[in-house]
Amino acid sequence: PAGIPVEPVNEDDPGLYDDLSLAEHNAVRVYMESRETLALTPWDEAGFSDNYINSIELHVPVKSEALAFLDGGGDKPERQALVTVHAGGKTPPVVEEYVVGPLPNPARHAPYSNPARRSPIPWTSRAIDAKEYALIFPIIENATAAVHDILKESYGYTYHNCSGHCLVDIDTVPKGYRSGQRRSWVLFHRGGVGGVTYFVGFMIQITHESVDPSEWHVSRVYYNKQYFDSVEQLITGYADGSVEKDTPHADIQDDEILYPTFVRRGKPQPASPSRGPTLTEPGGRRYAVRGRHVEFMGWSFDWRLTTSQSMQLYDVRMNGERIAYELSSQEATSFYSGYNPGMLNNLFVDSYWDVGRSFELVRGIDCPKTATFFNTLQQRSTKEPRLMQNAVCVFELNAGIPLRRHFDSDFAGGFNFYGGMADHVLVLRHINTVYNYDYVYDYIFHQNGVIEVRVGLTGFILTSQDKNSYGYPLYGGNIGNIHQHAFNYKVDLDILGAQNRFETVDIVLENITDPQRPDLRHIQTRIQRNLRRTEREAAVQYDFNRPKYYNFYNEEETNRFAVNRGYRVQLNGIAKTLLPRQDWAPMRGVAWQDYQLAVTRRKESEPSSSSIYNQNDLYEPLVDFQTFIDDDENIVDEDLVAWVTLSTHHIPHSEDFPTTATAGTQMQFFLRPFNYYDEDPSVGSSNAVLITPGERSGSVRVERFGTPTGPACVSEQSPFRYNGTWRGPH
Amino acid sequence: PAGIPVEPVNEDDPGLYDDLSLAEHNAVRVYMESRETLALTPWDEAGFSDNYINSIELHVPVKSEALAFLDGGGDKPERQALVTVHAGGKTPPVVEEYVVGPLPNPARHAPYSNPARRSPIPWTSRAIDAKEYALIFPIIENATAAVHDILKESYGYTYHNCSGHCLVDIDTVPKGYRSGQRRSWVLFHRGGVGGVTYFVGFMIQITHESVDPSEWHVSRVYYNKQYFDSVEQLITGYADGSVEKDTPHADIQDDEILYPTFVRRGKPQPASPSRGPTLTEPGGRRYAVRGRHVEFMGWSFDWRLTTSQSMQLYDVRMNGERIAYELSSQEATSFYSGYNPGMLNNLFVDSYWDVGRSFELVRGIDCPKTATFFNTLQQRSTKEPRLMQNAVCVFELNAGIPLRRHFDSDFAGGFNFYGGMADHVLVLRHINTVYNYDYVYDYIFHQNGVIEVRVGLTGFILTSQDKNSYGYPLYGGNIGNIHQHAFNYKVDLDILGAQNRFETVDIVLENITDPQRPDLRHIQTRIQRNLRRTEREAAVQYDFNRPKYYNFYNEEETNRFAVNRGYRVQLNGIAKTLLPRQDWAPMRGVAWQDYQLAVTRRKESEPSSSSIYNQNDLYEPLVDFQTFIDDDENIVDEDLVAWVTLSTHHIPHSEDFPTTATAGTQMQFFLRPFNYYDEDPSVGSSNAVLITPGERSGSVRVERFGTPTGPACVSEQSPFRYNGTWRGPH
Ligand SMILES: [Ca+2]
Ligand SMILES: [Ca+2]
Ligand SMILES: [Ca+2]
Ligand SMILES: [Ca+2]
Ligand SMILES: [Cu+2]
Ligand SMILES: [Cu+2]
Repeated sequence: PAGIPVEPVNEDDPGLYDDLSLAEHNAVRVYMESRETLALTPWDEAGFSDNYINSIELHVPVKSEALAFLDGGGDKPERQALVTVHAGGKTPPVVEEYVVGPLPNPARHAPYSNPARRSPIPWTSRAIDAKEYALIFPIIENATAAVHDILKESYGYTYHNCSGHCLVDIDTVPKGYRSGQRRSWVLFHRGGVGGVTYFVGFMIQITHESVDPSEWHVSRVYYNKQYFDSVEQLITGYADGSVEKDTPHADIQDDEILYPTFVRRGKPQPASPSRGPTLTEPGGRRYAVRGRHVEFMGWSFDWRLTTSQSMQLYDVRMNGERIAYELSSQEATSFYSGYNPGMLNNLFVDSYWDVGRSFELVRGIDCPKTATFFNTLQQRSTKEPRLMQNAVCVFELNAGIPLRRHFDSDFAGGFNFYGGMADHVLVLRHINTVYNYDYVYDYIFHQNGVIEVRVGLTGFILTSQDKNSYGYPLYGGNIGNIHQHAFNYKVDLDILGAQNRFETVDIVLENITDPQRPDLRHIQTRIQRNLRRTEREAAVQYDFNRPKYYNFYNEEETNRFAVNRGYRVQLNGIAKTLLPRQDWAPMRGVAWQDYQLAVTRRKESEPSSSSIYNQNDLYEPLVDFQTFIDDDENIVDEDLVAWVTLSTHHIPHSEDFPTTATAGTQMQFFLRPFNYYDEDPSVGSSNAVLITPGERSGSVRVERFGTPTGPACVSEQSPFRYNGTWRGPH
Repeated sequence: PAGIPVEPVNEDDPGLYDDLSLAEHNAVRVYMESRETLALTPWDEAGFSDNYINSIELHVPVKSEALAFLDGGGDKPERQALVTVHAGGKTPPVVEEYVVGPLPNPARHAPYSNPARRSPIPWTSRAIDAKEYALIFPIIENATAAVHDILKESYGYTYHNCSGHCLVDIDTVPKGYRSGQRRSWVLFHRGGVGGVTYFVGFMIQITHESVDPSEWHVSRVYYNKQYFDSVEQLITGYADGSVEKDTPHADIQDDEILYPTFVRRGKPQPASPSRGPTLTEPGGRRYAVRGRHVEFMGWSFDWRLTTSQSMQLYDVRMNGERIAYELSSQEATSFYSGYNPGMLNNLFVDSYWDVGRSFELVRGIDCPKTATFFNTLQQRSTKEPRLMQNAVCVFELNAGIPLRRHFDSDFAGGFNFYGGMADHVLVLRHINTVYNYDYVYDYIFHQNGVIEVRVGLTGFILTSQDKNSYGYPLYGGNIGNIHQHAFNYKVDLDILGAQNRFETVDIVLENITDPQRPDLRHIQTRIQRNLRRTEREAAVQYDFNRPKYYNFYNEEETNRFAVNRGYRVQLNGIAKTLLPRQDWAPMRGVAWQDYQLAVTRRKESEPSSSSIYNQNDLYEPLVDFQTFIDDDENIVDEDLVAWVTLSTHHIPHSEDFPTTATAGTQMQFFLRPFNYYDEDPSVGSSNAVLITPGERSGSVRVERFGTPTGPACVSEQSPFRYNGTWRGPH
């Protein structure tokens, strides 16, 4: 059976959080480009010094209006778009954001104003786009043309007019070491499959800070661990022998290097090719999909996939009760260490990167064969939105472990009963590929009320010519530089309403008179509920030696045992950020990394912990998360938001080739009911099994609560289609 | 297709680690009971004051002999059994252990001697067995008969001659607060399904320390938070009104209480019954099973399931190279807190418990429908071994996540390639049910050389009448007492031979002159390899603020990049043990709990970190793990063993009913290759997929390396059989 049919998005009556349709994208673009006062040039005709639209996406309704509609029968909030304009034509140039509405027929626009953010958005903090790259490429071309022979002799690879052994350029971030600077180190890695895992020891720094692009220039050159003020200085020194020359590494001289590729090699596994186990759905699809709305075994939620912050879930409910108004990815960072200018400047804040996209997923690999796939539209640095095919999937997974079970022995060779239930979960997945890296983002809904938020690492690592104190040797004489991954999430828990409290339930030691033997002492643990009253009290820097639960609860609502109903946040994948924010200026832009969990009063002016403008101005960031906490507001019986940071330190090793693997690199946090329900809500499941001894010795009664059993021939057929393109929607 | 057939154990030529066959069990028993000097009484006829066999199990060969056979073509070590005798007939009584061999025709026996353990094994430290219980039951009967009316009036439940509302007794551990004591608090919980989740406020302490059972007696009584010296004192006080009476709680007055049961209730999920997704094997079984030997995609290992320490893996290899000589469960503890004598004395050390058995697994719930099941034989406190049907399963799981993948964008709306591979893993599983609790033990083999060792919690929690500082209110007016779970594992890694080193690879901060700008400082992390030279240097007490990798490597062996080949231990499920060993005597018996990871020189005299005799003498334990470390031996280029402790603090909550769920309660550690292989060994897999753009725009080439594709009708039929009995093998 096919199960519950999938209903497409209803474009005539979109959900509150549905991303913009193609028609809405077009209507917004046409509306904005028709406003004479804005003086916008269409993307195709625009140059760096014009005003043009950089991105268009949904502008979500304010929470109070959304709740009035969802809960109070209020009007449906108008749909609006957020349009980003690169106003290179203004003096001085500036980045502008406009809220445009109402959709689908826009009639007004107003600057997006947010008192909690820097204003205006500094021109130098903007994400680099195709118009700016177009002006930088000639500088790279000229420089690499001049050193063509040096590159060829040193590495066997060239950039300018190359064919075969080609180099590819990437630019580092942040673009400077102080607010307002804009200078990029341009690095070069091998072209070809897995080429990103091999960087050569030649780099150039381009200063492109001036509003006049004719002033942009190569300001520094790095070659084989030596610095030069210009390309000419390198060329001269190379010619007169004063420069220490680099030599090609044997490992990289073949244009078809197998090592960093996905070509099968080595001992065949299995001995002869065969298919692995696969998921089938003898009961058909058991989750409902209506547009971006998903329902599964009491769970329901809406989702959208933004261009910059990827996945956002809204209105997450269990059995009709809202658990979280919003559960959303905020930011992903990877901060590298090293001694060469590339690694010294690789502090990646991924929302910035236009390449941070969720590309097409492969059925049977990225998601099980049974999965349901979704296309998305994303518009940034393009004329029109890109159609990202199969960018998101949702599926029911048999996790291969019992969710709960008990064998009740009679202690005499038999049993009283057996009860159990498999862990059938719903998984919402997308995979962000940020240039080299692939992040597997999962939102997993267990039937016992537990939400598991997980991110796994895969994709290529970055390498460089560097010292061994920053990583282990790999191929081509490079090392894999150590770095830290960190991921921030916003969890706007609303436990039976928006007024909640946050407490830590501390596990503390006590040393008491033994109640049964007053002559003895007794040492044990007990629990201590500590209400956190203000934001500073609620900023968690994890301490292994002080175990505690983090609980969000409603003071007015109790379960049948008179305990406040709550949900706890359980952190399973955290790591200390060693870089000291007080001493190290760029950390200000990722202040959330200092807290494994922070709790703040929810504000419309604090929609996210980061922004795409933080990357290039980590020093005076557009969003300074610390300010969310510093006003130290009361958080008792307020609308609270939990900000969760997952993290890991990655020291690359040979087994990171061809890619990092997800086994062992998955980080998680859980949202777990904590006296919220009177009992595990999965007791409602008819997929549980209860076995009791039968009349005859050795016979049993198997209660399946109506679930069919017996043979079911399930066709393994599922249409495999792949396209790989993410061009325009036409 | 059925795939690779399963070969049964070859009893004529058993593997080195195969548990004893039924014939071997019988031969050992007959041999021992025929030795006149031992004066053993057969189990059926034995009383408490006789000498009788308590348990029989395999005695594994010493490692050097095993390796000589496995690696050097030496003789196969003789098979031997370890026989435990409760010598109640000796003066003074004592527990004896004998090594008996050679099997299958035993001809000699000798005391098992271990200089590193206490000797002889104190009689008072032995595990309580059926012979002792037989003498304790009358005492319980007499006491409960005397207070029958009090129990009835107070709780509505009785023990003596009850029918219907019955109580069930359990005894606490350790049995005293000093070495050599033997006194048990006997607690009473409701009978019936889930009755273990409701304890009444009546308890008796029985002192059964004397070698003369006629001296055993009720030494203390507890009722409704009041202590009495005798049952009579309670009865008198109850009659004269000086005792504060307990009153029946409405929640527990129905004999068919639904709350702690597995009966389906509440909102049906799904709306109408249907089957969930299930695993199928279109390629058939892809792992080989020969007796207790398992092979899967380059992995191979042997396993056995002991009565006391459950799962033990031996000779774990990848692509023929041994990674670990032994990977084995050592101990599981749960230490409770509370104010009543039951919870004050519930320091469970589970290997002690004869009830700590791996009972029959249910196909489709405990293990996927495709799993292969194994029976085991276990003999302890019984006349002959018990046949535990389907006690272990092994299966290949499609974990539902890509093991590795990369989408290589061309940054122009297309892609260069996509490469990926699903995470098909082999899982070896058994579930230990220790009275109320069920521990799901998994050993997971990933194709990239990673071993994941995982334990998940399910089963019933324990409750009591107690103060709220020890837990949250639950049904029947009881609370769920806070406790800590801890699990210890032995990991005898042998990285390319038994001589290995252990290092921490520390991630440390550095503050340097910026190499590109001498006027600036640069702060970043670097790695620092710290060889640990002695056992004390290698005893890890986790520090979140000092991130590090734990690496075991071979100083003589390097990968192709001249890096020492190693495996690292990654800890994902650890918790601080707050109870201070220096101040709190019982912690001496679980010294391993203080270390998340400890590394010692391997010794035959230190086969395990615990023993079944530790439970009842935590104060002067038979095995004091701290002594493994205290001699502070050199561990450079020695045969090393890693001892890993997983742990969690459990504050029960309403959703622990009917049982704790595995979602969010899984603890793991990983054994991960760290520059061991030249590259991810899963590059050999033909289950990977490589997709590249085709000739025509939008077309793709899909390389599956010979793996068949297309429709495959897979019957979901798998025989469901369940028995639930674990009686004798006949
Ligand atoms: Ca605030
Ligand atoms: Ca909230
Ligand atoms: Ca030692
Ligand atoms: Ca070893
Ligand atoms: Cu990484
Ligand atoms: Cu527990």
